[in-house]
Amino acid sequence: MGYRKLDERDIAYLKKVTEDGRVLTGSDISQDYSHDELGGVERAPEALVRVLSTGEVSDIMAYANREGIPVVTRGSGTGLVGAAVAIHGGIMLETTQMNRILELDRRNLTVTVEPGVLLMDLAQYVEENGLFYPPDPGEKSATIGGNISTNAGGMRAVKYGVTRDYVRALTVVLPTGEVVEFGGKTVKNSSGYSLLNLMIGSEGTLGVITRAVLKLVPLPGKTVSLLVPFADMEQAIEMVPVIVEAQIQATAIEFMERETILFAEEYLGKRFPDTRNDAYILLTFDGRNAEQVRAEYREVADLCLEHGAVDVFIVDTQERKQSVWNARGAFLEAIKASTTQMDECDVVVPRDRVADFIKYTHEVAGILNLRIPSFGHAGDGNLHVYLCRDDLAEDEWKEKLSLGFEMMYARAREYGGAVSGEHGIGYAKKEYLKEQLGDTQIGLMRRIKKAFDPNLILNPDKVI
Amino acid sequence: MGYRKLDERDIAYLKKVTEDGRVLTGSDISQDYSHDELGGVERAPEALVRVLSTGEVSDIMAYANREGIPVVTRGSGTGLVGAAVAIHGGIMLETTQMNRILELDRRNLTVTVEPGVLLMDLAQYVEENGLFYPPDPGEKSATIGGNISTNAGGMRAVKYGVTRDYVRALTVVLPTGEVVEFGGKTVKNSSGYSLLNLMIGSEGTLGVITRAVLKLVPLPGKTVSLLVPFADMEQAIEMVPVIVEAQIQATAIEFMERETILFAEEYLGKRFPDTRNDAYILLTFDGRNAEQVRAEYREVADLCLEHGAVDVFIVDTQERKQSVWNARGAFLEAIKASTTQMDECDVVVPRDRVADFIKYTHEVAGILNLRIPSFGHAGDGNLHVYLCRDDLAEDEWKEKLSLGFEMMYARAREYGGAVSGEHGIGYAKKEYLKEQLGDTQIGLMRRIKKAFDPNLILNPDKVI
Repeated sequence: MGYRKLDERDIAYLKKVTEDGRVLTGSDISQDYSHDELGGVERAPEALVRVLSTGEVSDIMAYANREGIPVVTRGSGTGLVGAAVAIHGGIMLETTQMNRILELDRRNLTVTVEPGVLLMDLAQYVEENGLFYPPDPGEKSATIGGNISTNAGGMRAVKYGVTRDYVRALTVVLPTGEVVEFGGKTVKNSSGYSLLNLMIGSEGTLGVITRAVLKLVPLPGKTVSLLVPFADMEQAIEMVPVIVEAQIQATAIEFMERETILFAEEYLGKRFPDTRNDAYILLTFDGRNAEQVRAEYREVADLCLEHGAVDVFIVDTQERKQSVWNARGAFLEAIKASTTQMDECDVVVPRDRVADFIKYTHEVAGILNLRIPSFGHAGDGNLHVYLCRDDLAEDEWKEKLSLGFEMMYARAREYGGAVSGEHGIGYAKKEYLKEQLGDTQIGLMRRIKKAFDPNLILNPDKVI
Repeated sequence: MGYRKLDERDIAYLKKVTEDGRVLTGSDISQDYSHDELGGVERAPEALVRVLSTGEVSDIMAYANREGIPVVTRGSGTGLVGAAVAIHGGIMLETTQMNRILELDRRNLTVTVEPGVLLMDLAQYVEENGLFYPPDPGEKSATIGGNISTNAGGMRAVKYGVTRDYVRALTVVLPTGEVVEFGGKTVKNSSGYSLLNLMIGSEGTLGVITRAVLKLVPLPGKTVSLLVPFADMEQAIEMVPVIVEAQIQATAIEFMERETILFAEEYLGKRFPDTRNDAYILLTFDGRNAEQVRAEYREVADLCLEHGAVDVFIVDTQERKQSVWNARGAFLEAIKASTTQMDECDVVVPRDRVADFIKYTHEVAGILNLRIPSFGHAGDGNLHVYLCRDDLAEDEWKEKLSLGFEMMYARAREYGGAVSGEHGIGYAKKEYLKEQLGDTQIGLMRRIKKAFDPNLILNPDKVI
């Protein structure tokens, strides 16, 4: 709130340390930079700087810190909670041109990248080299820097864990301009507080990531999915604890409702293998070879049929894989295209409460007379629930949205869940985080923020 | 340094909130509580309190915070860096009587425990229930609270990761006495800064852990080890990057020298399967069934023979497993018994620098004319290197110890390594941590410490 406006001297400084026309101001900054994917909060930065190096970022941060200018870092802008929106104006550092893959270390199984590398480019690069970066969020055009900043999860978390589990080291420019290295190429580390883990998931509020060393694993030799239709969602979701108890390690367990699949069919203009049933789970298994994978998916197929599955479709051909996974990847966009405006609830609950929670979203939809489609990661308890405005008037929409969020986050808390499983808190979910964690934890986080950013100039008023 | 002594009023308070003779003072406190396993630093607490509940810990912390009394938490005292020694006197909270296993949740694959549960009791309990807690440090009589506080690693980190990867939630009493819950039973979480991960590995300096929810995995159906002798250590260790590059997922890859094995034979009075060669690696493979495991270990056995292994012993029978793993578990004690006094260097380096580092420890041994046996986790780059006093005079020993440490930590830094892989910093390794991380990172850690513990009463002057 109390930040001063940029003046000509500031712009001159930014141009001096970056050169080459990489500083944009005023109407030269595209409207895209004023919001993220969901657009719940909008404001243009006063200067957009397309940074290229740790040194540039360090110079700019030191200057901004001295001058009290707010700075926000932005990757591809695919966020959903406003974390990368310049709500106080100031400087936006765009990292998408820092997109080099710097090193593939086969002896330590690591890849070193700049923060602007896109997730899809990273996946392609390592897989071409016979290696595997497991985190697999639906949004493949996100940057790895953004993924680290939100501790992105994705489909394969059931087996492989989340982004946090694959970050070995970060080069970080602190809000003061100092450059530090958190972590290293080592597998183990018990050397002081884990600043590395504090940085991961801090949504650009504690420092600017300018380089990351990521852990890789062997590329699975074989991957097969099963698409399993059920008569209703409760039955479908109840498969998750059954599979967990049977101790079979699925890579991914996604759930989807017919309505969402139909939106995706329409959005993509492509057919899905089956749309005759109300509820589906999509399971993936991977392993070193076909035999190992076959043994696992057959056992699960039998379990599903024993527990009421209508059928089991094996998704093994390239064509069918594309049809199913392209649809899954398009759900967010498809639901967005089905309505005038929407907002998302990215709750996570213990795996055995997913069915209860989805049932509750249907109740909320009934009570508020609001359309609330959902899909998500049944296998790790992370749901994506969409509140759709459709033809509601502004006032009514705001009121129902607020009520809907409150009801759902309260229920998630009751179940021992959390506000966000993978999309973060940003600007949009701050109040709900506060309700979840309480004053003591928020107080600790505020003091940690101060420990990194004494003048509160880096992405201020986000998360806490 | 500036802490006041406990007086009668303080003791009366401690007795009031705990009852039942669980407060000991003066000569009633056994000498054992003055030091840890390595005994590099000694001091008795003024009061030892055998706590039983979160409520008691909260009352005592609130009191100590108000009164400016230092508090240190102790589990089994198996630490190696003095982290649980009451260097300023004050109150010691002993957690070993908080040793209940509170819940096994099969639907979410978690176990909830009190901090004083011993690692061996936890392992036995979950395995009897067909489940598996993968972290496997050599010291099985450590408490789980201590393991979380040091982010303990152990043998199986190559495949399964370290303690950090298995902690889903912690109940923590803050230095102010406030009680908080970090994390939850959920698999994913992107809801604010990860206070959970900050707490893990903080060596009792940020809060007192009074309850933990741990992630479990399915119990492997089959486990087989290979004992592989080589003519020299370099050849043995060079197998690690070869196996990593071949993308075979070993569970554990340990290295051991003949000398260490001979100490263990003598210490245990039991024979090891083979002691004719200078260097050995011990590999473990586990999986759902015998076929899967056999395919992996055969491939590795062939690779080892191609790369100069003298032989390959399959460790599959119960008898041989015991002979090999009991010896491995006794290395620290056996080396300790072979000398008058020793200190440990728990460095971790990138996996491809392990052979270089061991070679360097031999050089240091030559330069200083000091015996420096070592063993450790070749598969994750974490070495346990022991500087042995033998018949050196006090002055000479101190000088050589200090020189030896400086040389080895400097080399580890050069290789991109860290001061500690799994045993922590505590009191003994503070200076080396400072050299590794530099003033900026130590400054961040100090400010974080202040954010949790404004009066610096909880385990003061440890880590940083």
